[in-house]
Amino acid sequence: MGRIVSPSKVEVPHKWFNILTALNFDIPVNLPPERSSDGVSVQLPIELVRQTVTKKRWVDIPAAVRAAYEKWRPTPLLRAEALEKYLDTPARIYYKNEGVNVSGSHKLNTAIAQAYYYHRAGVRRLVTATGAGQWGTAVAVACAMFGLECGVRMVGTSFHSKPYRRTMMELYGAEVSPSPDPITKAGRQFLANHDPDSGNMALAIAESLEDTTRDGFTRFCIGSGELYSILHQTIIGLEVKGQLSMLGEEADVIIGSLGAGSNFGGIAAPYIADNIENGKKVRCLSVEPSACPKLTRGEYRYDFTDSSGLTPMEKMYTLGHHFATPDIHAGGLRYHATSKLISALYHYGLVEAIAVPQTDVFASGALFLRTEGFLPAPESAHAVHGAVLEAIAARVDGIPRTIVINLSGHGYFDLAAYQSWHDGTMVDINVTDDEIRKSLSQIPDVKCIL
Amino acid sequence: MGRIVSPSKVEVPHKWFNILTALNFDIPVNLPPERSSDGVSVQLPIELVRQTVTKKRWVDIPAAVRAAYEKWRPTPLLRAEALEKYLDTPARIYYKNEGVNVSGSHKLNTAIAQAYYYHRAGVRRLVTATGAGQWGTAVAVACAMFGLECGVRMVGTSFHSKPYRRTMMELYGAEVSPSPDPITKAGRQFLANHDPDSGNMALAIAESLEDTTRDGFTRFCIGSGELYSILHQTIIGLEVKGQLSMLGEEADVIIGSLGAGSNFGGIAAPYIADNIENGKKVRCLSVEPSACPKLTRGEYRYDFTDSSGLTPMEKMYTLGHHFATPDIHAGGLRYHATSKLISALYHYGLVEAIAVPQTDVFASGALFLRTEGFLPAPESAHAVHGAVLEAIAARVDGIPRTIVINLSGHGYFDLAAYQSWHDGTMVDINVTDDEIRKSLSQIPDVKCIL
Repeated sequence: MGRIVSPSKVEVPHKWFNILTALNFDIPVNLPPERSSDGVSVQLPIELVRQTVTKKRWVDIPAAVRAAYEKWRPTPLLRAEALEKYLDTPARIYYKNEGVNVSGSHKLNTAIAQAYYYHRAGVRRLVTATGAGQWGTAVAVACAMFGLECGVRMVGTSFHSKPYRRTMMELYGAEVSPSPDPITKAGRQFLANHDPDSGNMALAIAESLEDTTRDGFTRFCIGSGELYSILHQTIIGLEVKGQLSMLGEEADVIIGSLGAGSNFGGIAAPYIADNIENGKKVRCLSVEPSACPKLTRGEYRYDFTDSSGLTPMEKMYTLGHHFATPDIHAGGLRYHATSKLISALYHYGLVEAIAVPQTDVFASGALFLRTEGFLPAPESAHAVHGAVLEAIAARVDGIPRTIVINLSGHGYFDLAAYQSWHDGTMVDINVTDDEIRKSLSQIPDVKCIL
Repeated sequence: MGRIVSPSKVEVPHKWFNILTALNFDIPVNLPPERSSDGVSVQLPIELVRQTVTKKRWVDIPAAVRAAYEKWRPTPLLRAEALEKYLDTPARIYYKNEGVNVSGSHKLNTAIAQAYYYHRAGVRRLVTATGAGQWGTAVAVACAMFGLECGVRMVGTSFHSKPYRRTMMELYGAEVSPSPDPITKAGRQFLANHDPDSGNMALAIAESLEDTTRDGFTRFCIGSGELYSILHQTIIGLEVKGQLSMLGEEADVIIGSLGAGSNFGGIAAPYIADNIENGKKVRCLSVEPSACPKLTRGEYRYDFTDSSGLTPMEKMYTLGHHFATPDIHAGGLRYHATSKLISALYHYGLVEAIAVPQTDVFASGALFLRTEGFLPAPESAHAVHGAVLEAIAARVDGIPRTIVINLSGHGYFDLAAYQSWHDGTMVDINVTDDEIRKSLSQIPDVKCIL
């Protein structure tokens, strides 16, 4: 197991860090949707809107949010000495353990902030959509903290195959429904043409949005990829900087798994700013699944953020909003694109990316368990695998380096996936160039919409 | 969520505490079994034998064991302020969180010590039996630490219904087999007359013992109730004393759930000694399931420690070794008796006991999750419920008190049980006086054996 380096010696930051103030370029603006969806409420609390446009470098963390953070933050930064020894590497490996809160992942950092702002804005009920349940659990916990009601639409296959996360949400008082649900219009339309087991996130989002029409006090919230979500996650990177500095260490490589981008962006943001402004050369490496290689094999262009075609278009690295991501176990990394912020950072060469197959990822996750005594979520195991590759490179090159992993969550509710790896039944799914080309060709040309 | 009070400010103790040196009475000796079982190896490493007879007050923790403890110890002592507030009690409630290691429970404290001693004694492979899997997981982790092979016989119904713990053990390299297993003689005999689903701990133990005949390098280890197990668990109580003293607090009531007795004995031992020797009056309250009320409704007499009738008899509070404990969710508290040490302490009035129904226990467990952000194992939720009752009593009486819960493990692999509580399908099972009387009547009279 890892040696705890500084679990509580650094203070929980008082402000989030706004990386936009360090960039020499603008993030391309969103394009409005061609059609609008009837009566759904996606209005953001004014504070969240402000956070996406502010020119301030530091954004105050409200006292109530910081008090909630203090229940488990600062999260421990641990040295993975047993893993280093196993890999016989001259590299030093640290991991920031974001899996030590009750929701099990970093998602709680933004869920709490959002619940706070919605609560202050007079909202009484938050609804959201969740795939495997990590985000839904974070929202359920955050709602309980601020006395909000909570409704979670969970993709039906996960609802039935991952009952533990559902139970956690229900014990926190959330109402959890499987999607598709015949109670919604979107659900009925879907069920008329599809198998009940073929629901997906896009449908769960559509059904959640429909829930907001129930009354004037319900709003829909979203966990990842938005500028404000990544802003809230910068608390991870800020703590890491403080903790490493107390140790007299300097990071050489920061590694996070990449879905929409909030865990990777959250740990990398302060380092990227340092690279731009202070001439530092810390590599920021994102690790995506080879089954969903948006940065490494996608295109940088305008696309929809979900499969409905009703959302604003954003400029991002995408595989196409109809891309049928293979059913890998890291559900949180199956998104067809990555956020416009991470996409722009990659476009301008400020972050790196690699794509890795899931059997390698689970091998590294299981190795991490045996050496460090902590089981990474399948998503987080991508970052672990990236660190293993870097550590091996350090041995081969003979060049030591200090590696920091964002260990975004625990995998104790994902043991069925680990069992399939252990049994040897897990397979890797290759995505062909043809599949990607075909999916990209389905994105409407932006000029048709403007 | 609880506020961390002192996760790392106290040092990990260098010695375990031997409570036998504080007692004014002897623990009754074991009686040898009438029949012996062929060729099985239950030989203990000499150090473990010494620990059951030593007159030394303090037993050195070997450096390698202490180094392993330091990976996660001292465990946090947390103040349950949100729970106190919810209960509107003048009591102060602390909980010692033993669920924060990778095995998920306090069992790792003794598993590591045992693996170390067996390894030093030249043993190459440890086998054990496990019900729900907490003990088996602890042994698997400990064996991996010291390079021992590990074989776990898991009660078949749990093997199939609790796949997550099985996967954890396998990821640590343990070989996990369901019991009954046709590969063993005991398994074949059982299968000839019973349903394959009706296996139990007694059979799993018998099959594990048979595994020791395979070669000269395999030994069987056991997790709870032995004097040396409770000795190893005193690290919990020693840390609590240090942590409370740093806070300027004095405990009034120490609470633990009661199965064979290792988690309760571990936290209570230093306090009981203080009561005897220094005139302190700290109440030590054990909480047992009303479905298995060995202390509150059993008899203090010689009985077998398992249903085989092959083990030595020990003098203990028992419901009879053929007592058919109802199938409650707290599998770790279903043992028909409690250890001879705890039994003697109860006999001499040094500890208290209450029995509580499981629906109340799960209500308190779920309340603990919502207020403190940590889900107790069903076993540990018994201790939480005991604390809730004490806190309510404090409100009713208007007498404040400082309560310390031994939170022996997490319940994240027991969510199916919590779901059944949440759904309202969980029931309480009453044990009748007749059932207990009948079961006690099956215990052979000691004179027949001597």
